[in-house]
Amino acid sequence: MQGQNQQQAYDRGITIFSPDGRLYQVEYAREAVKRGTASIGVRTPEGVVLVVDKRTRSPLLEGSSVEKLHKVDDHVGAASAGHVADARQLIDFARQQSQVEHVRYDEPIGVRTLTKNVTDHIQQYTQVGGARPFGVALLIAGVSDGEPRLFETDPSGTSNEWKAVAIGSDRAAIQEYLEDEYETDLTVEDGVKLALRALQEGREDALEGDGVGVAVVDADTETFRELSTEETEEYVADLE
Amino acid sequence: MQGQNQQQAYDRGITIFSPDGRLYQVEYAREAVKRGTASIGVRTPEGVVLVVDKRTRSPLLEGSSVEKLHKVDDHVGAASAGHVADARQLIDFARQQSQVEHVRYDEPIGVRTLTKNVTDHIQQYTQVGGARPFGVALLIAGVSDGEPRLFETDPSGTSNEWKAVAIGSDRAAIQEYLEDEYETDLTVEDGVKLALRALQEGREDALEGDGVGVAVVDADTETFRELSTEETEEYVADLE
Amino acid sequence: MQGQNQQQAYDRGITIFSPDGRLYQVEYAREAVKRGTASIGVRTPEGVVLVVDKRTRSPLLEGSSVEKLHKVDDHVGAASAGHVADARQLIDFARQQSQVEHVRYDEPIGVRTLTKNVTDHIQQYTQVGGARPFGVALLIAGVSDGEPRLFETDPSGTSNEWKAVAIGSDRAAIQEYLEDEYETDLTVEDGVKLALRALQEGREDALEGDGVGVAVVDADTETFRELSTEETEEYVADLE
Amino acid sequence: MQGQNQQQAYDRGITIFSPDGRLYQVEYAREAVKRGTASIGVRTPEGVVLVVDKRTRSPLLEGSSVEKLHKVDDHVGAASAGHVADARQLIDFARQQSQVEHVRYDEPIGVRTLTKNVTDHIQQYTQVGGARPFGVALLIAGVSDGEPRLFETDPSGTSNEWKAVAIGSDRAAIQEYLEDEYETDLTVEDGVKLALRALQEGREDALEGDGVGVAVVDADTETFRELSTEETEEYVADLE
Amino acid sequence: MQGQNQQQAYDRGITIFSPDGRLYQVEYAREAVKRGTASIGVRTPEGVVLVVDKRTRSPLLEGSSVEKLHKVDDHVGAASAGHVADARQLIDFARQQSQVEHVRYDEPIGVRTLTKNVTDHIQQYTQVGGARPFGVALLIAGVSDGEPRLFETDPSGTSNEWKAVAIGSDRAAIQEYLEDEYETDLTVEDGVKLALRALQEGREDALEGDGVGVAVVDADTETFRELSTEETEEYVADLE
Amino acid sequence: MQGQNQQQAYDRGITIFSPDGRLYQVEYAREAVKRGTASIGVRTPEGVVLVVDKRTRSPLLEGSSVEKLHKVDDHVGAASAGHVADARQLIDFARQQSQVEHVRYDEPIGVRTLTKNVTDHIQQYTQVGGARPFGVALLIAGVSDGEPRLFETDPSGTSNEWKAVAIGSDRAAIQEYLEDEYETDLTVEDGVKLALRALQEGREDALEGDGVGVAVVDADTETFRELSTEETEEYVADLE
Amino acid sequence: MQGQNQQQAYDRGITIFSPDGRLYQVEYAREAVKRGTASIGVRTPEGVVLVVDKRTRSPLLEGSSVEKLHKVDDHVGAASAGHVADARQLIDFARQQSQVEHVRYDEPIGVRTLTKNVTDHIQQYTQVGGARPFGVALLIAGVSDGEPRLFETDPSGTSNEWKAVAIGSDRAAIQEYLEDEYETDLTVEDGVKLALRALQEGREDALEGDGVGVAVVDADTETFRELSTEETEEYVADLE
Repeated sequence: MQGQNQQQAYDRGITIFSPDGRLYQVEYAREAVKRGTASIGVRTPEGVVLVVDKRTRSPLLEGSSVEKLHKVDDHVGAASAGHVADARQLIDFARQQSQVEHVRYDEPIGVRTLTKNVTDHIQQYTQVGGARPFGVALLIAGVSDGEPRLFETDPSGTSNEWKAVAIGSDRAAIQEYLEDEYETDLTVEDGVKLALRALQEGREDALEGDGVGVAVVDADTETFRELSTEETEEYVADLE
Repeated sequence: MQGQNQQQAYDRGITIFSPDGRLYQVEYAREAVKRGTASIGVRTPEGVVLVVDKRTRSPLLEGSSVEKLHKVDDHVGAASAGHVADARQLIDFARQQSQVEHVRYDEPIGVRTLTKNVTDHIQQYTQVGGARPFGVALLIAGVSDGEPRLFETDPSGTSNEWKAVAIGSDRAAIQEYLEDEYETDLTVEDGVKLALRALQEGREDALEGDGVGVAVVDADTETFRELSTEETEEYVADLE
Repeated sequence: MQGQNQQQAYDRGITIFSPDGRLYQVEYAREAVKRGTASIGVRTPEGVVLVVDKRTRSPLLEGSSVEKLHKVDDHVGAASAGHVADARQLIDFARQQSQVEHVRYDEPIGVRTLTKNVTDHIQQYTQVGGARPFGVALLIAGVSDGEPRLFETDPSGTSNEWKAVAIGSDRAAIQEYLEDEYETDLTVEDGVKLALRALQEGREDALEGDGVGVAVVDADTETFRELSTEETEEYVADLE
Repeated sequence: MQGQNQQQAYDRGITIFSPDGRLYQVEYAREAVKRGTASIGVRTPEGVVLVVDKRTRSPLLEGSSVEKLHKVDDHVGAASAGHVADARQLIDFARQQSQVEHVRYDEPIGVRTLTKNVTDHIQQYTQVGGARPFGVALLIAGVSDGEPRLFETDPSGTSNEWKAVAIGSDRAAIQEYLEDEYETDLTVEDGVKLALRALQEGREDALEGDGVGVAVVDADTETFRELSTEETEEYVADLE
Repeated sequence: MQGQNQQQAYDRGITIFSPDGRLYQVEYAREAVKRGTASIGVRTPEGVVLVVDKRTRSPLLEGSSVEKLHKVDDHVGAASAGHVADARQLIDFARQQSQVEHVRYDEPIGVRTLTKNVTDHIQQYTQVGGARPFGVALLIAGVSDGEPRLFETDPSGTSNEWKAVAIGSDRAAIQEYLEDEYETDLTVEDGVKLALRALQEGREDALEGDGVGVAVVDADTETFRELSTEETEEYVADLE
Repeated sequence: MQGQNQQQAYDRGITIFSPDGRLYQVEYAREAVKRGTASIGVRTPEGVVLVVDKRTRSPLLEGSSVEKLHKVDDHVGAASAGHVADARQLIDFARQQSQVEHVRYDEPIGVRTLTKNVTDHIQQYTQVGGARPFGVALLIAGVSDGEPRLFETDPSGTSNEWKAVAIGSDRAAIQEYLEDEYETDLTVEDGVKLALRALQEGREDALEGDGVGVAVVDADTETFRELSTEETEEYVADLE
Repeated sequence: MQGQNQQQAYDRGITIFSPDGRLYQVEYAREAVKRGTASIGVRTPEGVVLVVDKRTRSPLLEGSSVEKLHKVDDHVGAASAGHVADARQLIDFARQQSQVEHVRYDEPIGVRTLTKNVTDHIQQYTQVGGARPFGVALLIAGVSDGEPRLFETDPSGTSNEWKAVAIGSDRAAIQEYLEDEYETDLTVEDGVKLALRALQEGREDALEGDGVGVAVVDADTETFRELSTEETEEYVADLE
């Protein structure tokens, strides 16, 4: 048993390995992700659905200012979980990459390419000294060549493509629900419902419309759109 | 139980995560905010109200030199709580951003944009080594496109938009009072009174006119104005 | 007996020697390699075979997004084991080196030269401060002047040429199998089978087609090609 | 009880917060201020008075070389307490700021503006790594638009405006005396006497003329003038 | 007795002296040299012989890829012992120095000059912070003005010229053998045999042809040449 | 009682304050001054006298090479105590400042100005990281506008003007002697004798002519001159 | 008693003072000098003699490659003791300084000036962070304006001029011998003999001609010359 003491010896320097080959700072950054409320992505043939938990601490807080759903480009959106200010940095970086692609090649950036650029950026913060890793995970949803794509980035700079995936608190429970219930031929509407039910699964209290954010990247129009509070509330009301 | 010892191990380096995914230096900076006297913001349809506690330690100290209310631009003001010299740096930064916008686009900076720029600046000090986080929270009040807006920034670089909010010492008690008493259709005058009563709630001794600062960003004129001592004293006198 | 305590004293600084002349950070990076699933290379007169273990954690994860097989140039490919994001950096570096050679000399880069460039890059991260070593090993497979070549790089920046070799978890068992079963006059088809059987040797559960990736650099065409899932599944099915 | 041990853990790094939100290095720099002999400022309608304690350790030391009263500009002077060499750096900085203003705008720098520039400079040394805070406090006395102004700067970079204030050793006793005896309609002559009596209050031995320095910024002439030893001795003799 | 504890105190910083005037990091780098298999140099009037131990860990490893013998220039070669990737850096540096000399003076670099340049480079890594010393020793063999020369470099940046010398594991035993058996009037053939017998002396198992590398810098032709495996095997076979 | 332990906690970092507001590294540098042999300055109306203790460890050492008396400019000289190599750096700096003044203003640098420049330089090494303070004190003697001036600099960057002063070992005893015996109307000759007797006071063995250095800056000629060994020996002989 | 523990606290940082005002790293560098074999300098009216101990560890080592005697310029030579690679750096630096003087002023550099330049270079490594001090002492022998000069440099950057001096191991015994036997009117031949006898004094075994190096800077010809092995052996043979 390695135990507590040894662990302490390795996690103070940001860019070093522990004797068993792990980067503790990166793993602690993953804990920062788990501290954030959940975000869920579901890919359907018709488009990609992003659902985020936006519960606020106070009725006086404007829910619309909770930064969890982000438009990156016309055809790409993202949902985040973890350190809010870090997420904003990565989203800004993604937007710049997207703009650069427009300017250079006069065409929309590929979702996979965009994800690679973002994770390369993240990786730098895990290898070079003088900064800490990003304490945030992203779901990057978009359409490339008519194909809906859904990628996840984690604090190590690894990316994975998913049919459906959750990040943030209660990931394990939500992911298990998704694995049980996901089907490949969902409509977008089905996808939203699946994601909301999965989110409910990971929570003790009932969802409320203004505590949830929903966005869709439509495969046909190749457009990111965040649903209005009304639309969202309707979905939530239908859950029961 | 993690306890005291483990905590000590993680809070000496400024940019690293603890095993449970927290950035201790940022949380300690939040303690610096709590050490400062309170500031309160209240948004009304007619404009945004900022009220600050300016109690001085000595009768020989000029209350007017207590830096808690700051004009940022014609249409934006700010109130701070926490480390005074840090607040001055952020306010200077906000003013520069505001001027840059004027010069570049010949129009006033949006309150949300301004807040984003400020929090991006704050975030840098939490991720890159060689400096400590800012030990201050700001309330940024302004008018964009005729709409009153009220944002809070915290030492992590997170921003939130509020209907009414308090920062600094006794935040919990004041915020609770605001949540109980706030109504959406307040006049500016009501807003000032609400904020003063909330501030009184968090203090043991009675407010005095020269120990309080009040400013308003008016929705119609889109102008930041700090109330004179006389106006303030009248409000305070009316509290009883 | 040197034991645990002494070891702790030397492994915190990234670029220093221990009293017995070892670079602990480099050895811990080797542990990161061992934590990764296995990759296998087999050289035959007809070409070089790369086989990688792509087992996924979840049925919702797209196996194709598991980054273990990489095309570097028309005539060169690579397989990795260890830290995924680090591997991506090295592969990007290798691709750049390859492009530079094309531009400068208008001819394909030699496999040995490419390997040297990559390992020089790796070595820098083991000697100069401010960064950690790369936590990844690569198998670089290619054809130079009609000759199939298979190189391994490790986190110290050492390279070796092999007839057949494994990296990643269970390396010992797989390598032993390869040493017992390897013959120099294999066909490419034999090579794939050998590698798959060796991979099976290191695992407890049976291989499945979509949990394995296979690529070949053909000696005649001097071309890297990743086999389709169908081709791979056929090979796996033939294993029994 | 937090106690000695915890404190030690946080005060070695110059730019970090303690768990209760304090910057220990800044507070220790305040101790350096307390180790210095006292300086006192008194604002009157006729001008601002600065009185400094110049006791020397040896009769062979030239009292005139004790650097505690500094002319900054024609209309601004300063008194310091704490680390002597640090004070000289800040005074040099203040003089440069003053000159820059003359060159840029062809008019004397405002006392408040000057103080802001100095405290911004001080703040940088409390946030960015690689240097320690300034171990000195200043009283900046001057006239702006005919108005006498008296500001204090502390090692955190905070500034305050005062009617009358003391810095350095025995601050508490002197300040208490000032609060009891200060009146707003003092003549400059009264101000000098008040400051000298306050200084005497904080000392056990009797003041002597060559152990005290006195300067005045006159509101009419807007001119800083250090009193001659003879003038000072006369004031001291009158104290009894 | 100074013992273990004191030693630990001094060997963590790379560029500092211990109380008895030693540079521990340099001495630990010497341990890295001892961990490498042996290399031997023998100078004869006809030329300089380099013999290296190339034992491989696995029959599947290509012995030719074991980097222990290096051509530096037409008239200079080198053998290394210790950290393989470090050796490659030094050899690259030596080759550059050699090329620079060709370009600048249009003549081959002197062996002594080349050695000096390499050891100056090594010394920098022992004095200036931010990097570790090179964990490798070199034997630099060449011909200058018709004279065979044989130099050794060590991790401190010291160089020595030898008639015959060994580096790497079992240096002591091999060197003793050389001191007993060396004669000044050897032929190159004798030199190779002496070196091989000396290498055998330091090993428990019998040498095999493909586990040994042999190179010669001929005094007449002033040319470095690595012997073919056949030639080497013949020599090894003759050992019995 | 603070004691030994606490002290150790604060003196390792060069630029930080201890809890009681002291800069330990600066105070330790003062100890380095005390470890040096004494230097004495005496100001008279006719000029400034510098006397230094030049005892050598060995009869084979050339006393003239002991660097304690330094000509800075025609009209300025200096005596040092403490770390010899550090003194040389400060003297070089002073000479450059002096030259710069000649070039810029075509007139000799003021002694006070020169001292300020030197102490500003010293102060930098006490505040900014990456270097240690200077372990040396200087006596700067010169003539400005016909007036003899004598300044002392210490490792904190503080300067003081003196009638007569000692630095280095036995400062306390020598200074006491000077305070008892100094008179303001001394001739230069009297000044030399006073300084020599004071130096004798601090030593157990009798002064010898070649173990002492004497220099004078003459008020009339405004010229620094080091006395010859013969002149010095005559003075020493006259002491009895 | 300060003892072992306290010492450990101060010697890890390279540029800081201990509480008693010493620079431990510099003192440890002096230990590195003592670990080196001895070098001796003797000044005579006819020239300066340098004698170095070149004992080699192995009969196969070329004594001529032991770097202890160095020609710096036509009229200047040097002998070193301590860290060999460090000595080479300082000698290179001295040669550059010498060349620069030739180029700038078209005349040979003064021996004192050269020594000052070298010791200024050494001092930098004792004050500024990021590097360790030089672990070597030099004897710099030369002729300036017809006068033989002999300087010693130490790791602190201090220089001294000597009639006769030893550096390296057994310095105390050798220096005592020199102090007993040195006379000012030696011939160069006498000087060589004195130095050799002094060197013998510090050793247990008898000197041998090829274990000693001798060089002379002749006062008439102003030329540095290293004696041939034959000349040296003759001197050694004459010792008995």
